[in-house]
Amino acid sequence: MKFPSKVLENVVDEISGLPGIGRKSAIRLALHILKQPERQGLALGEAIKHLVTDIKYCKECHNFSDADICDICADESRNTKLLCVVEDVRDVIAIENTGKYKGRYLVLGGVISPMEGIGPHQLNIASLEEKLNTREIEELIFALPATMEGDTTAYYLYKKFKHLPIAFTNIARGISVGDELEYADEISLGRSIINRIPYKES
Amino acid sequence: MKFPSKVLENVVDEISGLPGIGRKSAIRLALHILKQPERQGLALGEAIKHLVTDIKYCKECHNFSDADICDICADESRNTKLLCVVEDVRDVIAIENTGKYKGRYLVLGGVISPMEGIGPHQLNIASLEEKLNTREIEELIFALPATMEGDTTAYYLYKKFKHLPIAFTNIARGISVGDELEYADEISLGRSIINRIPYKES
Ligand SMILES: [Zn+2]
Ligand SMILES: [Zn+2]
Repeated sequence: MKFPSKVLENVVDEISGLPGIGRKSAIRLALHILKQPERQGLALGEAIKHLVTDIKYCKECHNFSDADICDICADESRNTKLLCVVEDVRDVIAIENTGKYKGRYLVLGGVISPMEGIGPHQLNIASLEEKLNTREIEELIFALPATMEGDTTAYYLYKKFKHLPIAFTNIARGISVGDELEYADEISLGRSIINRIPYKES
Repeated sequence: MKFPSKVLENVVDEISGLPGIGRKSAIRLALHILKQPERQGLALGEAIKHLVTDIKYCKECHNFSDADICDICADESRNTKLLCVVEDVRDVIAIENTGKYKGRYLVLGGVISPMEGIGPHQLNIASLEEKLNTREIEELIFALPATMEGDTTAYYLYKKFKHLPIAFTNIARGISVGDELEYADEISLGRSIINRIPYKES
C-alpha cells in the first residue's frame, strides 16, 4: 500500500498495530480524527501518552490506581476477609458495577496460558501468597474467565493454597462456558457472585 | 461504569469517541497498550498528535501530501488530460494500487449526503470547476462509491459541468452496488477503471 503522506502512513502503522484493527480500519480512523476539531485529536494522542507514563498500580490489589492504594483497598467499610481473584481491571469494573460484592480484590494481571507463554511467575501470585499468609482471609473467590486458561489458573491456585484454613469458592457459572466475565450482563454476574460455590477439583 | 483510575478513564473516553469502538473495546485497547513496551504507546500517541498538527493537503488535488504538491500531481509523466474524481484518500490509494491509472485525481473530501448534512459546498467542487475551466482536461472520470450518495454526487457534477467539451465517464461497476471502492479487490478495481463507460443520466 503506497501512501501519499508519511505523516498518514506513520499513524496508520501505529494504529494498525493495535489488536483487531487492520490497515483499512486504521486509515478510516485517521480520516475520522482529521474531520474532528484539532483539539480532539490532540486530546486523544495526549491521553494515550499519559496512559503509558502516568498509570500506577495499587500496591495492595495490583489494580490500576491514581494513588498508591486504590479506593477499594482504602475503603475501611469493605469486608477484608473476602478476597476475589480476577484476571484484570475489566473484571473489577464489571463486578463493582453489579454492586453485589463488598470484599476486596487481587488482580492477577493475566491467567496461566501455555499457548501464550504465560506462566504463574508472570502473575501477581507472590503477592496473593503473602496476603493469604499474613492477613485474616476467610474466603478466596475465583472470579476467573470460564475458559480453559481460567480453569487452569483456579486449579493451580487451589493446589498451591489448599493447605491453608480458608474456603475456596468459584463464582457460579450463570455465564456460559467460554465467556469472558466483562461481557456478562450485570444481573447475571451479580447473581453468580452471590451464588458462588465451594471450589472443587474437577 | 466506575473506573479505578482517572488516567485510564480519560483514555477510554477518548478512544471510545472513535467510530466503531465502544467502551469495552477501548479498555481492551488500553490494556494492550499497557502490556507493550512504553515506547510503543508513546509512539502511537505522538503519531496521532503529528497527524492533526502536521498533515497537509496537496494544493492541486486535495489529497494528503507532505509537500505543497503531492507526488502524483508533481509527476510530469502522468496524463494531465485525465481527471479522476474520488471521495477521499482511501480511493486514491486503492486506485493507485491497481497500477491501471496514470491520470490525475481530484479528491472531493466526501460525497453529497443530505442525511449527514453534507452539501456540495463542503466538497472541493470550486477547485474542480477551476481546473475544468482553465486546464486542458479531456475526460472527467467518476470513481465514486456505488451508493446513493455516490450516484447523487456524480449526477450533480455531471449536470453542473455537462456544458463543457469534456467526456464524462463512470468506472465500470464490476464492483457490486453498495460497495465502497476501498474494499474492492485490486484486479476488479483495475478492470473497472480500464472499462470505464461514458456517464449517462439514469
Ligand atoms: Zn487496591
Ligand atoms: Zn496532488
